[in-house]
Parts: sequence; structure tokens; C-alpha cells
Amino acid sequence: MKVKYELIKKDEKARYGILHTNHGSYETPMFMPVGTLATVKTMSFDEIKETKAGVILSNTYHLHLRPGEDLIAKAGGLHSFMNWDGPILTDSGGFQVFSLARPKDISEDGVKFKSHLDGRNLFLTPEKSIEIQNKLDSDIAMVLDECPPYPATYDYMKNSIERTFRWAKRCLEAHKNENQSLFGIVQGGEFAELRKISAEYTTSLPFDGFAVGGVSVGEGQNTKIKMVELATPYLPEDKVRYLMGVGEPIDMLESIERGIDIFDCVLSTRIARHGNFFTRKGRVSIKNARFKEDFTALEENCDCYACKHHTKAYIRHLLVANEMYGMRLLSIHNTRFLIKMMEEVREAIKNNNFKDYKNNFIKNYKKSII
Amino acid sequence: MKVKYELIKKDEKARYGILHTNHGSYETPMFMPVGTLATVKTMSFDEIKETKAGVILSNTYHLHLRPGEDLIAKAGGLHSFMNWDGPILTDSGGFQVFSLARPKDISEDGVKFKSHLDGRNLFLTPEKSIEIQNKLDSDIAMVLDECPPYPATYDYMKNSIERTFRWAKRCLEAHKNENQSLFGIVQGGEFAELRKISAEYTTSLPFDGFAVGGVSVGEGQNTKIKMVELATPYLPEDKVRYLMGVGEPIDMLESIERGIDIFDCVLSTRIARHGNFFTRKGRVSIKNARFKEDFTALEENCDCYACKHHTKAYIRHLLVANEMYGMRLLSIHNTRFLIKMMEEVREAIKNNNFKDYKNNFIKNYKKSII
Repeated sequence: MKVKYELIKKDEKARYGILHTNHGSYETPMFMPVGTLATVKTMSFDEIKETKAGVILSNTYHLHLRPGEDLIAKAGGLHSFMNWDGPILTDSGGFQVFSLARPKDISEDGVKFKSHLDGRNLFLTPEKSIEIQNKLDSDIAMVLDECPPYPATYDYMKNSIERTFRWAKRCLEAHKNENQSLFGIVQGGEFAELRKISAEYTTSLPFDGFAVGGVSVGEGQNTKIKMVELATPYLPEDKVRYLMGVGEPIDMLESIERGIDIFDCVLSTRIARHGNFFTRKGRVSIKNARFKEDFTALEENCDCYACKHHTKAYIRHLLVANEMYGMRLLSIHNTRFLIKMMEEVREAIKNNNFKDYKNNFIKNYKKSII
Repeated sequence: MKVKYELIKKDEKARYGILHTNHGSYETPMFMPVGTLATVKTMSFDEIKETKAGVILSNTYHLHLRPGEDLIAKAGGLHSFMNWDGPILTDSGGFQVFSLARPKDISEDGVKFKSHLDGRNLFLTPEKSIEIQNKLDSDIAMVLDECPPYPATYDYMKNSIERTFRWAKRCLEAHKNENQSLFGIVQGGEFAELRKISAEYTTSLPFDGFAVGGVSVGEGQNTKIKMVELATPYLPEDKVRYLMGVGEPIDMLESIERGIDIFDCVLSTRIARHGNFFTRKGRVSIKNARFKEDFTALEENCDCYACKHHTKAYIRHLLVANEMYGMRLLSIHNTRFLIKMMEEVREAIKNNNFKDYKNNFIKNYKKSII
């Protein structure tokens, strides 16, 4: 079965819906934790379940290099390999190839690059990306798109979206896994006309959902939100809309307001490993000396494992001493924080007060580390 | 209340008993996982409970440096600080001072040393060690002993056990925590006469239990077991006997045969972080290429979380990619392995067939990495 998006309720452009997958049905808006290498770093899958996560994301590029899609296929696919019975979305590998692997050489056929691990030469084409994702057997696969540099000129971007469109058609052609959905990606940078063209191109093809790409590399919040705003009006109401690589609370709220349904980002777990955690007041460093004798939870009223079991003073000690259990506790807290926020967002949309919720959240939340 | 040891059954010299503490009663022989910095590395306290651990150990030296005993006292003691409701044993700090912190300068008063973290000058005396442990509020504190180098001459060792005896008396004098037990330590290296003298000295004092020290630094299994054998005959039957720093399966079996009740060692969790795990056949490296496509559990019939949830192929992938979740899974497995082994040992003693159990275990178990 392909995923199905059921739109239940709108509050202006903000959407409350349900994403039906082969591994359960999940409400949107939704934040998807990232399990790069078939593990959401430091966390067990029971802990991921406890955060109430729905879909989790895994990275095709990383899994292609280690342990390889053939091994995962032998294990019975990615669900079975990592023992996760919820849905999985895999990216195309394109973003990592364009950001991690250098030098690279892009042609109509695909992109030549060197592995960031051992420098060996590799070649990713639309067909290859789909073949890998078919073998991984994720619930949702993504087309290979060109991830243009930011900023890019209008001409560069125009050529790029044309190529991305041709690649999208090749992905559809190559896609063989009947149980796997395939999502198209709208690019076009910050150019209104190109976002529109790219959206029209992409939505002309029979994809099961649509992503807005190229936003996470944008500089500054205004640019990012503008890119979202330029793309969403052209996306069909009956398909799920995915904003790739964005997981900063305010960016997500602004994007939900513009009609986005699902998000992924490594931010929540990456900052955790460096000792930072989300609160309603903003992002905080647990290493701050003011927490040395703070025997309260990371955040009052938080229902995550870390907040139910340990104090700031203890978790601070763990991070100062570079102890993995501390990184794990903050990863759990941050993941639960974003998922809890999405629960509230859904409630707000259902009650027609998303805008109030958003404004109130933003009023209390400082973007810089506090 | 002080801990009480209840001897229930002997099978030759091997002892089955119960250690009663302020935080529950636990059967012996027992393996105690090590939570150096108030965390058993990578594991949650629920996971430690799931391995059926009883007492866990924490290190006074490490906690004195980070986060400091005063902070832990403010948190309400170590149980409360780390949120562990089982019993805790703290060492004296001596072992780390003698092994980690250099240069050191031993006098009758105590030992001057430099922190291994920042080089600051510190001074550990018997009184200071007890004061720190009183504040940590562990269930069991250890006396500060001199940990002599191995090998040491007879004369050096003779002077050392005399000093250790004088330090033991000072520790008893300084000990003020009515709810905390204090254990004495028998030293004496590999010298039969000195082990006897040290045991007689130590057991002449009103300690709540007795440890055999200086064994983990011994070279070779024969030397270690000899040291145990030289000390245990002089230890009273009605007190628990603790072999410090030994956690290799065969060493533990040999020591149980000679009358030891409790053990601690970082081995099980340290080797886990390097990708090694215990099996009935011996210690194994998960990184071995032969596990690449092995979709079975680490060990058949193991009831640990790792074995119930994940395959060798998956855990191998995690370790190869340096993922913390893999280190955590192996830490859980190794801890459970040793504790499960102790469950079997206790059954064997109760059934008067410890010797068969031990011989059978050793026959199947290779000491080198297989």
C-alpha cells in the first residue's frame, strides 16, 4: 500500500490530518526523528516509541556506505534490520552527496563523488538512489534531486530545477517497490517563479506526497520561510507536504502556518550530544554553571524519561564528564519536546486557534541559546 | 543499619548467602557493575535493574573531582543524585590515586597527588576518604589502603600492610555515618605470611565486611588466585567477602571456590565500548567480519535487552560506525552475562555441584578473544 494523507481539518492554511502507512496511521503535523545510520543516535527504539514518534527518517547515503543496502535487504529490509515497526522515510542520498562528499561532478546522468569515509569513487544516479531505497524497503522513498548551493543565480537554479524534473521522471520510472511510496521534491531556491515552475512540474507527476527542498540550507529565517511560502500554494491538498531538514521550533511553526505537515531534522539530537536542550523559553546549555545545584527537571511538566527520572544537576554532571548517558537523556528530552509541541499544534488546529498557539510560543521562546 | 551477611549454604568453601542492606537484600555470590562517575557508562538505571544487578559501585576519587561530594550531599546523597534505589558501595579513592594520579607522594599522613584532569594538587588521607564517603552516603564505604605496586619486595609490602593497618584504624575512628557500613581491606601481595598478618590485623577491627585488595594488579591468573587463597582462610564466616576489581569470569569462579562473595570490575562495560562481548565460549569481538550477515542474537538463550531485540549484524554495524547505541547494547549484554552467571553459581552452590558448574564453564570458555 502507498501512504495516504487524510486532511481532517484546516485552520486557515494550517492542516491537521492523518498519514496512513503500512506501519500504522499517524497524525500530522508531525516531527520525524532522524536515524541516520539505522539508529536515532544514543536512543533505543523503545525510547523512540516512548517519545510518541511516528515516522522516523534514515539516510540512504549513510546506509549505502555502511552497512550497504544489500546487507539490509538480506536482513529483510530496514524495519527488520533495526527492529523498528513504525514507518520509515528514506531520503535520496542527494543532500549528503551535495554537502558531505567532495569533490563532486554533476552531469545529466547523475553525480560522481567520493565517499566521505574512505574517498572511494561513487556514482549516484536517480535509478541508483531508487534501487537502494527499494532495497532498504522504507515506507517512503524520496526522488533524487539536485541540491543547489545557496545562494545560486537564477540561471543556475532554472537549469537545476529542469534537471531535477527530468531526474524525478527517471525516479518514477525506476521505482519498483509496490509497498513503498515515492515523494517528489520542489526546488527553486528563493525565486518565486522557479518555485512555482518546480511545483507545477513536480505535482504533474503521480507522486504519493510532496517535499519542499533546499530550505534547510537557506540563510536566515526569513529566507527559509519565504521559500516555503513560495512553494506550498501549488501543492495539492490531498497529499502530505514535507519540509526537509527543518526542525527548529519557530521555523516549524511558521511552516505549519503555511501548510506544511511533516518535518525532519538532526538538530534535536545533535544539540543534545553537545549539551543543549529545548525549553519553552528557548534552547539552553546544560553546562551552564547556574544548573550546578539545580535539582529540578530539565523542564517543569515535561513527561519525558529524562525529566521524570533525573535532575539538571545530575545531567549537567554527566555532560561535563562527557558521559553518554547524559547525551542520551538530552536526546530523549529534545525529541519528546518537538513531538509534544506537535501534539499541541494539532490540538490548536483542531480548535481553530493555531495562530494564538504560535504567537504565544514565539513570544516565550528565544531563538538564541539562553 | 549496617549491612549484614547471612551465610545460608556452603559447598566446600563456596558460599551462598544474602547481603542485607538499607536498600534491599541481595543474594551472593554477586557481581557489582561499576558506575564510576555516578553512571554505569551508557546504561540507564532501569536497564541496570533489568540486568538484576544488586549493589553497584561508584568511585570516590572520580566523584570527588567531578562533581564533588558536597554537591552530591546537597542532592541528598549519591542514591538521590543519580536516582538509584539499590545499594551502593564506594571505594576509598586509593586505587585511582595510586594508578591514575601521578606523581604521588606517600607519607604516614596520606598521599599527595595531582588530579589526572587538571593537575591540581590534592591530598588524600584516611580521614578525608571517609569524610568524602560519609557525604556520598553510600551503603558501604571502604577504608583507604595503600595499593602497593606489583611486584613489590617483601620489605616494602611488610611496611605497607603495617601502614594500611594504621590507616584502617584511623578510618574507623573517622567514620561517622551510622547508616553506612565500613569494610576493611586485606593486602600483602603474594606473600603468604603478609596476607595472613594483614588479614589478622584487619579482622581484629570491627569492620562490617572484608575485602581482598591488590589482586587486580597481579600479573597472570595463577598469581591472582594465589593471593585470594592466601587471604580467605583468615576471614570470618559471618562477614561478606569482597574481591576488589576482579570481573573476569574464570577468575571469579576460582575465587568463589575459595570463599569470595562479591566482585566488581569495569571490564564488562569497558570491553563493550570497544566492541567485545561475553559468550559461554569466551570473549568475542562483534567487529569480526564473520558476524556481518549474522542475523541471530549475540548469544542464544540470553535474556538481555540486546539479545531480545537486536541481531549481531545490526550491533556489528553500530560498533563499526561508532554508534553509542551499539556500545550500550553490548554493555547491557555483558553486565547481564556476569549477573546471570552468578545466578547459576548460586543455584550450583545450593545444589552442592559448584565444582561441576565451574569445571564445565571453564571447559567451554576460552580466555582469549575468539
